[in-house]
Amino acid sequence: MTAFVKNWLEFMSIITLTTDFGTGSPYVAAMKGVILSINPAAMIVDISHAVDAQDIARGALVLEDTTLWFPDDTIHVAAVDPGVGTERAILYARIGSQQYIAPDNGLLGRLMARTLPSMVLRLTEREYWLPEVSHTFHGRDIMAPVAARLSLGLDPRQLGPVVGQLAQLDLPQPQVVGENIRGEVISIDSFGNLITNISGDLLAGKPNDSRACIVCGIYETFGIYQTYGEQAPGMLVALIGSSGRLELAVVRDNAAARLGVSIGTPVVVAWE
Amino acid sequence: MTAFVKNWLEFMSIITLTTDFGTGSPYVAAMKGVILSINPAAMIVDISHAVDAQDIARGALVLEDTTLWFPDDTIHVAAVDPGVGTERAILYARIGSQQYIAPDNGLLGRLMARTLPSMVLRLTEREYWLPEVSHTFHGRDIMAPVAARLSLGLDPRQLGPVVGQLAQLDLPQPQVVGENIRGEVISIDSFGNLITNISGDLLAGKPNDSRACIVCGIYETFGIYQTYGEQAPGMLVALIGSSGRLELAVVRDNAAARLGVSIGTPVVVAWE
Amino acid sequence: MTAFVKNWLEFMSIITLTTDFGTGSPYVAAMKGVILSINPAAMIVDISHAVDAQDIARGALVLEDTTLWFPDDTIHVAAVDPGVGTERAILYARIGSQQYIAPDNGLLGRLMARTLPSMVLRLTEREYWLPEVSHTFHGRDIMAPVAARLSLGLDPRQLGPVVGQLAQLDLPQPQVVGENIRGEVISIDSFGNLITNISGDLLAGKPNDSRACIVCGIYETFGIYQTYGEQAPGMLVALIGSSGRLELAVVRDNAAARLGVSIGTPVVVAWE
Repeated sequence: MTAFVKNWLEFMSIITLTTDFGTGSPYVAAMKGVILSINPAAMIVDISHAVDAQDIARGALVLEDTTLWFPDDTIHVAAVDPGVGTERAILYARIGSQQYIAPDNGLLGRLMARTLPSMVLRLTEREYWLPEVSHTFHGRDIMAPVAARLSLGLDPRQLGPVVGQLAQLDLPQPQVVGENIRGEVISIDSFGNLITNISGDLLAGKPNDSRACIVCGIYETFGIYQTYGEQAPGMLVALIGSSGRLELAVVRDNAAARLGVSIGTPVVVAWE
Repeated sequence: MTAFVKNWLEFMSIITLTTDFGTGSPYVAAMKGVILSINPAAMIVDISHAVDAQDIARGALVLEDTTLWFPDDTIHVAAVDPGVGTERAILYARIGSQQYIAPDNGLLGRLMARTLPSMVLRLTEREYWLPEVSHTFHGRDIMAPVAARLSLGLDPRQLGPVVGQLAQLDLPQPQVVGENIRGEVISIDSFGNLITNISGDLLAGKPNDSRACIVCGIYETFGIYQTYGEQAPGMLVALIGSSGRLELAVVRDNAAARLGVSIGTPVVVAWE
Repeated sequence: MTAFVKNWLEFMSIITLTTDFGTGSPYVAAMKGVILSINPAAMIVDISHAVDAQDIARGALVLEDTTLWFPDDTIHVAAVDPGVGTERAILYARIGSQQYIAPDNGLLGRLMARTLPSMVLRLTEREYWLPEVSHTFHGRDIMAPVAARLSLGLDPRQLGPVVGQLAQLDLPQPQVVGENIRGEVISIDSFGNLITNISGDLLAGKPNDSRACIVCGIYETFGIYQTYGEQAPGMLVALIGSSGRLELAVVRDNAAARLGVSIGTPVVVAWE
């Protein structure tokens, strides 16, 4: 890389935003304005503002599936915060090579279940916040300015004291019962594909041919395939999806709509 | 700041976009292409493209709630323009520290009601527009190229003559009637919170304890709180929201859906 | 331009994204993370993620209407890819001054019908992909890293061999039948305006006054106007829209909702 690029990269920090404010929400735009007012060269990337309102579990899943793909030291701001204005803490966490700013409500729970954070602080130092802090919008008044200041090189240890005990996220865990694995649908993507909490690792070493029977609600399919295209249009197919989890799809159709399945529907894998 | 950063900031202008084109609209993308074709280093920030079609009042509110958070000299392009192709003017306005390009239809009305603009021009100089101007898409053909040229340092006074009389926005104003304040719901956010046109300033000096009775449609609540978390889930609560306006919320629920309230519903604050 | 700007522009490549993943989809965010991990200074522009799932024809239209507005050499990544994981190729194409990465399924068909591509390659060289390639998400694992590497100066000829035969897009073509032109609605914008496949060029030299009768479904209107504002609110009006195609609009209303028209509805222009 050239000296120019090095110079650039030193200054140009990426800040991502994940909220339940809704796409096109003025709340998101206000956060961007605050960030750019402090660091006009921050590169802001929207991860998602389409998390259902106050759906911490969904937000945690989005963070797990997206933030690990970003460059080292990216600053991820996550505002799914039903407890805003109560005594819940706002955290700075370094998890693996990524940095996070999020309320202490389990939103980082999936990430922390993967990798122990190397640093977790509670934001308490008001000098890095906006001068006036509202009671209902800490994303704008605390999280955005702190992210912008970190992007300018602020040492995170200035932000507040180390935290020990964190709020937990009640994650639905797949159960291994005899020869069966019991999980559930945890996400439905825009294609209607059903993403389960059964990771590909759990299935490793088991036969993935027609001896594997996958039951979702009242439907079943046999075999775990590589991709949608291996079966005919309209067929229900099970495969290990791009996030490493067992997925159910209807080839060239919307499985959720076709099967009437929603988040929480049980999924069982059995071998015959 | 380093010389590198100074150099960067001199060139790197922020241009925001607010439209009623719909999220993911090709019209928005075409505007971005035009801007980047003239200034490839412009930093384009989407404020919102989810303003309801031709809803000038809503667009004016979005601009008021978001653009003031941006760095000085940011260029805000606002295209909610039911009169496109008629004789309505397109304006350049400097209001406070911000710059705006918008049709002369009241879209800047809320901002101008706060702060008198220091300069308002009518865009007439076609040399700063695209060579071919369609009759139906001035956002792409006039507003985008003018914004891009301003971001490269064009003096706005080159754009056209000073304008005197502007189109007005018919804003619903809160009324003080005896001891009561009568307003209405002017916005509903993605959480279903009801945002009124009663500013916190209007309530200053009045008791905010249980003597304050807030009536919204057929519902009432007592006291003006600091935050959602002070009442139990499911309770209707009144508070001064993050935009400085009186809001009504149902704790951890969607007030608009729960109460069947829409924009325009009267809200009265009375003291007993 | 200054040396600073030249330096900047050499390094700062624009990469656009067009997908059917849905606005706010974690899939889009993962693609952005991959791109920025390879080139942290890439400027990523969202064209649209609101293309209907697996709707190649719609994606092709979005690409035609937006990408030609971008600066020369922009890299456009288009992932509407129902055949992901099958043997369909992923292409690199240079069409006019723009670069595209897209599956070989007709998604570039409208662009290629306008301008013969000067280079079309099949992506085969895995060293430019992510080390692990999933079977269901080539947008993230192949297209994003290739785009990022191109933005850093990779010669596209490194990506794979030249391709001859390409998948075709079955485009509905307008028919000239005697004095009539028969087309259909190919797109409906967020205002409910009906955009047809009848280009303004087809109408050139014909009278556009009241002798022109435009029939859409069971409705008709006379004359082809310049803009919406020339008729009274509520009137059906025909005009040449900003994309150069014949459009039907209801002045200050939603034509699609008002007329009950959907994509595919026949539109006939006749002269009396």
